[in-house]
Amino acid sequence: MAGDDIPPELVRLRASIDNLDAAIIHLLAERFKLTRDVGVLKARTALPPADPERETRQIARLRNLADEAGLEPEFAEKFLAFVIAEVLHHHETIARSQSDQP
Amino acid sequence: MAGDDIPPELVRLRASIDNLDAAIIHLLAERFKLTRDVGVLKARTALPPADPERETRQIARLRNLADEAGLEPEFAEKFLAFVIAEVLHHHETIARSQSDQP
Repeated sequence: MAGDDIPPELVRLRASIDNLDAAIIHLLAERFKLTRDVGVLKARTALPPADPERETRQIARLRNLADEAGLEPEFAEKFLAFVIAEVLHHHETIARSQSDQP
Repeated sequence: MAGDDIPPELVRLRASIDNLDAAIIHLLAERFKLTRDVGVLKARTALPPADPERETRQIARLRNLADEAGLEPEFAEKFLAFVIAEVLHHHETIARSQSDQP
């Protein structure tokens, strides 16, 4: 679709979507800095990378927040699962690199 | 893991992760409000739900933003694909409901 065929209203909506995406990417960057610290702490204190009880609480909390914010709770749950899968992958890498150390 | 076995540092990190998650969920809720408007606009103006050129520009932009923010560009790209899949699903539902109208 050529640039000048786009309705002005669509241009405006896309600019706002792009701003929100930039904000979300920056928050995710901060979130992964914190989970990296969690991974190092868990490896150092021999805590397991996954914590099913914590995840259950997180799911319930985010489903509630999503519902109040007008977002489908199912999507919030899928989003958390998507992020946690990435975090666990990082934690396992950290745990392996720590156990490789003398 | 019982609550009182958790190192204080982990409690602190988790509280910050929970705050970031709440912020991200609220931004996602706003993002889906905007893409719902985009879906209605596209259906009304007979524009196709998907726009591969726009997606290519979004991927490049978010990969750059992620890189500057210290987030893996691959994760930013996976995140966008995850969100866009949900958006397309919404757009198709909107397009179907509009074409069902007399």
